[in-house]
Amino acid sequence: MTDDPGPAAHDDDPRVGDISERQLLRSILARLGPTAALVGPGDDAAVLAVPDGRVVASVDTLVHGPDFRLAWSTPYDLGYKSAAVNLADIAAMGARPTALLVALALPNETRGSFVEQFADGLRGACGELAPGCAVEGGDLTVSDTLTVAVTALGTLDGREPVLRSGAGPGDVVALAGEAGAAARGLDVLFRRFRDAAGVPVPVRRDELDPGEVACVTAQLRPAPPIALGPAAADAGATAMMDVSDGIALDATRLAEASAVTVAVDSAALGARRGWAVDGGEDHGLLATFPPGVPLPPGFRIIGQVRARADAPLLVDDEPYVGRAGWDPYRDWDAATG
Amino acid sequence: MTDDPGPAAHDDDPRVGDISERQLLRSILARLGPTAALVGPGDDAAVLAVPDGRVVASVDTLVHGPDFRLAWSTPYDLGYKSAAVNLADIAAMGARPTALLVALALPNETRGSFVEQFADGLRGACGELAPGCAVEGGDLTVSDTLTVAVTALGTLDGREPVLRSGAGPGDVVALAGEAGAAARGLDVLFRRFRDAAGVPVPVRRDELDPGEVACVTAQLRPAPPIALGPAAADAGATAMMDVSDGIALDATRLAEASAVTVAVDSAALGARRGWAVDGGEDHGLLATFPPGVPLPPGFRIIGQVRARADAPLLVDDEPYVGRAGWDPYRDWDAATG
Repeated sequence: MTDDPGPAAHDDDPRVGDISERQLLRSILARLGPTAALVGPGDDAAVLAVPDGRVVASVDTLVHGPDFRLAWSTPYDLGYKSAAVNLADIAAMGARPTALLVALALPNETRGSFVEQFADGLRGACGELAPGCAVEGGDLTVSDTLTVAVTALGTLDGREPVLRSGAGPGDVVALAGEAGAAARGLDVLFRRFRDAAGVPVPVRRDELDPGEVACVTAQLRPAPPIALGPAAADAGATAMMDVSDGIALDATRLAEASAVTVAVDSAALGARRGWAVDGGEDHGLLATFPPGVPLPPGFRIIGQVRARADAPLLVDDEPYVGRAGWDPYRDWDAATG
Repeated sequence: MTDDPGPAAHDDDPRVGDISERQLLRSILARLGPTAALVGPGDDAAVLAVPDGRVVASVDTLVHGPDFRLAWSTPYDLGYKSAAVNLADIAAMGARPTALLVALALPNETRGSFVEQFADGLRGACGELAPGCAVEGGDLTVSDTLTVAVTALGTLDGREPVLRSGAGPGDVVALAGEAGAAARGLDVLFRRFRDAAGVPVPVRRDELDPGEVACVTAQLRPAPPIALGPAAADAGATAMMDVSDGIALDATRLAEASAVTVAVDSAALGARRGWAVDGGEDHGLLATFPPGVPLPPGFRIIGQVRARADAPLLVDDEPYVGRAGWDPYRDWDAATG
């Protein structure tokens, strides 16, 4: 965005540095849809009803460079993903997301239309993945680095939270959502949509086969199975978490928290099993259930919980040794894009 | 921080880029003190008890450059201020802060000790300003620009929230907390602690008189009167907000939200009245009360609410025209520090 020709070239789409915060907020709020809060956006803080008597809360940040690139993500994609990854953290507790607070730090040269389309993406994700959840507050500030920090709040609706620590020997291990698509999509982006200097270039979907398109979409605009979080809790899930860093790393975390060994059958992970084990960002739900309970539709069994052995994680009955949670964004020179 | 000599010079204080996220989290959590949450840090999300049935929630972001400079703020200062400004938003609703979620985006070259001292500052602010409030969740990520986004949650303990929109003609206008100190402190920093090229240099407090030291402290480590938010609500405050952008801009916002005119007597703002009107970042509490009600100790009367006239704000009976909310950070070339 440093090569941006400046406001003269876009008189109908001003830079946020040339718009008052009030104007900018008004154009965002108009796009966010109805509020369900007792006090919604516009005061010092939002006030939300939590009849359950408990609130579930999580925050996650997306930073331009390590976490996304504007050459690849549209503003809508970025808004959608910012919401989706946070909704997944709430769902992973067995809760239903009810509100988002969105802190957006923008370079001055960002266009007003960017912010509007970002807001559309937030609303789109809430509407498709977590109906009833809305943006109820936020913050706008200036930064050299485009940064989105989203706080998601949710309700357990009377359920007990499903922690990482509740898995017991004999439980089945089940997964809902994508397995490897987002990591494969990131690989496609890195291999196919960078120029000779390594700088990201826009994605041309017509150069991709349908499987590649699906994977790139899973990376740029993930759609985690949010409603399956509460469904898993209702079905008796003993432990659950959101798979953000790949099955290997996240199943190891669940195993460590529960003091068990998790044994994964890689064939059950499907065609992209390698990406599913080592990659990340699918934001599926990894859960354990007592043996014999009917799983909510959308979950499939991928392994078993065993008494703790030396290794916390077995893949196809072998202790797992790998580059768990590989993140090419991190290994990539920040200067190239 | 770009001139940092790198890890070899600090073998006992590694770069965060060389520490695993798990290690870093462990060292932070060890410093944050006891959790009051049903589920505290370490799972996908925190679960907090909210017996009131409503939760108050706000987010605010501090970005290196526009909002703070590490040449001036110690890591402890930054942690303290990040908490304090968010606690003030909760207090301004008449609520008691109960939890913080802290999203921290750090350059790889940041030292581990920085993060520890930042955590100490968060804990210090909670302990001094809002006992019972603790960090219950967060997120660590990598960024070229050091960014702190804090979400504060709070409880009304059965009170009604105090909005900006409730002021009525005849009410008194009262202020608690600093008036102008933070803006005066920022002026001292800009005038006295930059080198010939405009780059910030460390603050030498021994070169300042006690009044200047107090103002610099109010800027770098503000201590808003958090407990007076609920006290004002209990005393019958009709409207309230946190003064982040100066009395002129924030009183205008309150007047607009309430469809009234606010008349401020600048003499009541004390010795730094000019800074109080035009400056910002004091994070005091501006509240209106029905005439005749005893104000909670710590509030002083600074004006009256009148029926809406042409101007939303009068200062010393004249419609206010000024550079409301001047922010020298924003006007300052980002390249110089």
